[in-house]
Amino acid sequence: MTIPKAAQAFPRSEYLRRLSAVKSEMERREIEVLVVTVPANITYLSGYTSKSGYVPQALIVSLKDEEPTFITRRMDAPAALHQMFIDRNNVIGYPEALIANPERDGYDAIIDFISDKGLGRKGIGLEAKLLPSLTVEKFRSRVAGARILDCTNAITWIRGEKSDLEIAMMREAAAISDAGMLKAKDVIRPGVREADASAEIIGALVRGANGKPGTDAGSFFLCATPRTSTCHIRWTEDVFQQGSQINLEFTGVRHGYTSPLMRTLSIGKPSDHIRRLHEGEVAGLEAALAAAKTGTTCSDVAAAFNTTLKKHGFEKESRCGYAVGIDWTEPTASLKEGDTTILKPNMTFHLMLGNWIGEDVGYVISETFRVTDAGGEPFTRLPRELFEI
Amino acid sequence: MTIPKAAQAFPRSEYLRRLSAVKSEMERREIEVLVVTVPANITYLSGYTSKSGYVPQALIVSLKDEEPTFITRRMDAPAALHQMFIDRNNVIGYPEALIANPERDGYDAIIDFISDKGLGRKGIGLEAKLLPSLTVEKFRSRVAGARILDCTNAITWIRGEKSDLEIAMMREAAAISDAGMLKAKDVIRPGVREADASAEIIGALVRGANGKPGTDAGSFFLCATPRTSTCHIRWTEDVFQQGSQINLEFTGVRHGYTSPLMRTLSIGKPSDHIRRLHEGEVAGLEAALAAAKTGTTCSDVAAAFNTTLKKHGFEKESRCGYAVGIDWTEPTASLKEGDTTILKPNMTFHLMLGNWIGEDVGYVISETFRVTDAGGEPFTRLPRELFEI
Repeated sequence: MTIPKAAQAFPRSEYLRRLSAVKSEMERREIEVLVVTVPANITYLSGYTSKSGYVPQALIVSLKDEEPTFITRRMDAPAALHQMFIDRNNVIGYPEALIANPERDGYDAIIDFISDKGLGRKGIGLEAKLLPSLTVEKFRSRVAGARILDCTNAITWIRGEKSDLEIAMMREAAAISDAGMLKAKDVIRPGVREADASAEIIGALVRGANGKPGTDAGSFFLCATPRTSTCHIRWTEDVFQQGSQINLEFTGVRHGYTSPLMRTLSIGKPSDHIRRLHEGEVAGLEAALAAAKTGTTCSDVAAAFNTTLKKHGFEKESRCGYAVGIDWTEPTASLKEGDTTILKPNMTFHLMLGNWIGEDVGYVISETFRVTDAGGEPFTRLPRELFEI
Repeated sequence: MTIPKAAQAFPRSEYLRRLSAVKSEMERREIEVLVVTVPANITYLSGYTSKSGYVPQALIVSLKDEEPTFITRRMDAPAALHQMFIDRNNVIGYPEALIANPERDGYDAIIDFISDKGLGRKGIGLEAKLLPSLTVEKFRSRVAGARILDCTNAITWIRGEKSDLEIAMMREAAAISDAGMLKAKDVIRPGVREADASAEIIGALVRGANGKPGTDAGSFFLCATPRTSTCHIRWTEDVFQQGSQINLEFTGVRHGYTSPLMRTLSIGKPSDHIRRLHEGEVAGLEAALAAAKTGTTCSDVAAAFNTTLKKHGFEKESRCGYAVGIDWTEPTASLKEGDTTILKPNMTFHLMLGNWIGEDVGYVISETFRVTDAGGEPFTRLPRELFEI
């Protein structure tokens, strides 16, 4: 019996549109085959979200073929048949003998496929900067004579401009992020363990919102007193106290798409210092959104934020955001002064205003937004409050 | 104000013991500095579990110094000061200017540190096979003249033999895994969405067991009818039906340490085929555990499983397990025929007997165990049942 095709997150026409953009870029770079190994890029071009990327696998995009071919470990092929929009003949499982084998691995199966099909004579694109060095060496030595071109982030730049269908998906993710933050407001109380509150919030992110469940548990950070100067701790075994401050960062996930959100909560009144920092950051957030119009630059948005925050007597060392989409960060454009990327409609950013100062101060607020002609349009519906419990 | 030190998961003496083993290996390989970049290895040598590994960072182990030095993004330094057993002077934050900078990144700060301290003249070890190719090239070009040695998995092999303190930690993780599976038995019912059941199970894994919370949400897979032939799908939006089969794989986590567990559940009577497969797998599991004595090989354990399963009329294509510990898989020893790794006391394995056949059959059972002179001692206390709901 064959495994049924899952309900697809996007229509076939949407995937073909994305592939068409990738193929144009391949032509521009004069390559005829692109070996896609970054999981978020595989999701983008096929709908695949199964977590098999810890072993070698690749989506092979060829100028000769309308659909790409996916090569993965044989035990993961049924998930690809189920989730990917492509024809079942375009999913190839490589044998188990290539797992935990020091001589040959899944990349050999990928190289064999390219060689056997006579692909790549004009040039082979790799996401080389992100591949293990051993793998790049293997391509260089096994595909002798072929021109190997580094295409790291080529697809990621294309992903940067979302379609309306993708924006709708990110709004679904944002509604889940909001539900998670509202749950946090409900369950964070003095005497509650950080872990128990986290269990409730993560549960809310998985259950989802508006009848649409989360499709994954994204990254999750809860950094509470006395750890508010940290930013990437999951949670601890401690119990919240009267006076505790809690910095939260997480996202809902819909078919890979994220919409990260940060808010600070305070059990009791926050200090004057944190209150003033909050006011400066919210003013900066609003200035940044107002600046984030089609045609301006990432640098302009960052300058709007930084100037406003400075007027309130504060500074933020780290960049104030980055491109966001599938699997959270897109390693392309940054909202920082000096980044001259020009904003286009439906580019999406995590305006990440976490501000960690020294070892005892940290305050977080963030919103995920899309670029429009009128400025940045945030996906969250939450108020820009420092939530007092 | 300085951030306080967290309650430590292990005493200082335990970390020094681990570092001593690593330094002996460095002497054997004739290197004087080891650049540790694999997050699980950083956790092993320092107690750090904060999730900052998506930007460059490294724990520098030098033969000259008792404690290692950690170099990370400045905003992540407070988490390192909080979690790591090392002195605060041995945590160095590099500036934000190295983030999203195409010219220089955090590895430049790491290379600068090694050069400035005059380290590595004898040789520098890198976990090179896992580093991006760009990074390895950077070390080669910037530390001209230095002998750069690939030390991929050098620490992972040392991690393979656990101390009694680590075994105790894995037992805590196993108790959480058990709690998660018992929760699954409670919440999986006809008419329940896969996502809602997953929310409850993941919540249980975060809440923990015996007063010890989970310290992270580990990887989680729920592959239910009609997807039982898949193995790495999180969950879907579907609703369980009478007759659904559910294959579960997840782990509790304690301070990085995992103890993965798999069981199959059936709503109503399973088919005769699945029932017979279950009986064969359980017999194989018991044969493998009996074989897993100090002094035998991984291959012997796999042969015991495979022979027994074959007597029951089944075969399993994939290896029947792998070394396990911090962050789940240790990419070293595999329980497969031909792997001649000799079992030593307190080596720990995930005896992973997931068996996916074609596109419509999948059955899973697994236990995490430690090697003893008397055979494999499993950490789970769950019965070896195909749970019928």
